[in-house]
Amino acid sequence: MQATVIYGAGDVRVERVPDPEIIEPTDAVVRVVRSCICGSDLWPYADMKPSEQGRRIGHEFLGVVEDIGSEVSGLSRGDLVVAPFVFSDNTCEFCVEGLHTSCLHGGDWGSDQVDAGQGEAVRVPQADGTLVKLPSSAAAGDAALLPSLLTLSDVFSTGHHAAVKAGVNERTTVTVIGDGAVGLCAVLAARRLGAERIILMGRHTARTDLGREFGATDVVAERGKEGTEKIRELTGGRGTHTVLECVGTLPAFETAMRVVRAGGVVSRVGVPQYKDGPIGGLQFGRNVTVTGGVAPARHYIPQLLPDVLDGRIEPGRVFDRTIGIGEVPDGYRAMADREALKVQIAF
Amino acid sequence: MQATVIYGAGDVRVERVPDPEIIEPTDAVVRVVRSCICGSDLWPYADMKPSEQGRRIGHEFLGVVEDIGSEVSGLSRGDLVVAPFVFSDNTCEFCVEGLHTSCLHGGDWGSDQVDAGQGEAVRVPQADGTLVKLPSSAAAGDAALLPSLLTLSDVFSTGHHAAVKAGVNERTTVTVIGDGAVGLCAVLAARRLGAERIILMGRHTARTDLGREFGATDVVAERGKEGTEKIRELTGGRGTHTVLECVGTLPAFETAMRVVRAGGVVSRVGVPQYKDGPIGGLQFGRNVTVTGGVAPARHYIPQLLPDVLDGRIEPGRVFDRTIGIGEVPDGYRAMADREALKVQIAF
Repeated sequence: MQATVIYGAGDVRVERVPDPEIIEPTDAVVRVVRSCICGSDLWPYADMKPSEQGRRIGHEFLGVVEDIGSEVSGLSRGDLVVAPFVFSDNTCEFCVEGLHTSCLHGGDWGSDQVDAGQGEAVRVPQADGTLVKLPSSAAAGDAALLPSLLTLSDVFSTGHHAAVKAGVNERTTVTVIGDGAVGLCAVLAARRLGAERIILMGRHTARTDLGREFGATDVVAERGKEGTEKIRELTGGRGTHTVLECVGTLPAFETAMRVVRAGGVVSRVGVPQYKDGPIGGLQFGRNVTVTGGVAPARHYIPQLLPDVLDGRIEPGRVFDRTIGIGEVPDGYRAMADREALKVQIAF
Repeated sequence: MQATVIYGAGDVRVERVPDPEIIEPTDAVVRVVRSCICGSDLWPYADMKPSEQGRRIGHEFLGVVEDIGSEVSGLSRGDLVVAPFVFSDNTCEFCVEGLHTSCLHGGDWGSDQVDAGQGEAVRVPQADGTLVKLPSSAAAGDAALLPSLLTLSDVFSTGHHAAVKAGVNERTTVTVIGDGAVGLCAVLAARRLGAERIILMGRHTARTDLGREFGATDVVAERGKEGTEKIRELTGGRGTHTVLECVGTLPAFETAMRVVRAGGVVSRVGVPQYKDGPIGGLQFGRNVTVTGGVAPARHYIPQLLPDVLDGRIEPGRVFDRTIGIGEVPDGYRAMADREALKVQIAF
């Protein structure tokens, strides 16, 4: 089959690799229908050291079950399924608590003998625990729903995680930092949880326009000190109760800590590109909470699925380009150049 | 009157200062009955630059109302009252939310024309909002209750804040870092909130023995890497759901981040002696929340008071030395030398 392999910064190739097959009795093989490129894939695309053997990449996909191991009981060949961006058994003490990203038997797509998501098929470990079966109505082929269903794999679940960990509800004001696909999904998630005041920090008009459609009530294009002042102006000098940090850089986190209201919460879902951050006396004096992390998408998918199936939310609108597997290298380039917001791969 | 003035590191003096009097109609003057020295007073005692005029110090006290301004309606002369460690109006948007430490009209003892707590009397701004009246039974003079009532001013409310912000309950395991008075109060607060497994990190046996009486089920004397390994051994390799960081140094915070279970909470009440701390990818990957801050004691006092009055909890046991005002400089020395755990000043 064909799959995506990254060999270093700027060097993504589509290559012929072995077809996946069942190894463990708890495995399934999924023929991929849709996959996509993640903002976090752009970090190795920006700075990965050259590697001779390369590594498989991609962690968001939905597809059709093609084969199952002898111990898989909840899935059948032909089922349409969506995969969260890590695999997990859904039964260990962490999974039971809803923290599937810390599963004792889980792991990452593309590690060891596990396929990554940007390819034609994937061997899925812990298939019963990992895959979420989609109803046959979606399987019947309403292709219009597929992009939104695909976002449950990572990007919308991640935006939702930011909002949930921040405690967003109808009484909380919200700042979302970042107008990438995760930031826009965080806006949509905050609105879905009842927030009535959502300030989106971003400066790409096409993106912030979609952010307004998703529920942003204000857009702040300024960054750094100017951006902080703008948020303070908009909030009577206080800042917002919650800040959803959807970028991952140190300046974005510093901004988050400055625009959060005393007693408020900074919830991070952008993968931190820093080791240490400002959490000293100033933040302590204001009782600011820092939370968030890697989203347990597997926990959220069943909760979010009904709203996607009903069309009440359309997170799939973050995809502004659809390509075939052969065009994946150009898809990376387009996202890195901010020519595309988020790129979907259709098989 | 006599009051305590700090002039620099190691230089604390008791001096004659002007008697306080009503300035604003919302003021009260309180004649101090009990005051104490805080662990946080030891930071300037360790590193304050020499100052010719010095500054008044102390922020924990209870006493008797001696005079009130014309607009004070909830207090009368002769009332026994306890003061939280900052003053506040108890009516602004932050106070209404229980975050009195961010009061829009509040401030610190010892600032401007406001007296500090280690003296014979204090002018109390925002008296109706700040002071909590104690029942006449306590006022009748059960001196045995006074130490525990005094801890509501700061140290026990601070330990309670750590436990509340961490979300401690009967299902959460707890690590308390630090066997100072705040750490011991955090143990007591965690036990009061239902925690059944409380690991206290500390190496002063007299203190950890009191910690066991307060509810600690395990004591870990090791620090750093050895301490972390010990906690992991005690928790099946997982760490605890909550960590109450009651020291404030960077190594203590680093330990907290290492011994917290994935998905858990590090709650800080030790005043951070650092600007930046480890909150990068490692903490993000484990979904660790960092919370806590300056405790809104005014919010907690009414909630904690019944248990103190009933004798169900005795946080006042953290005081192991009682001195007169003239001995305050030696009280500082004794606490700095760890000869005394916490020093009470009786007037």
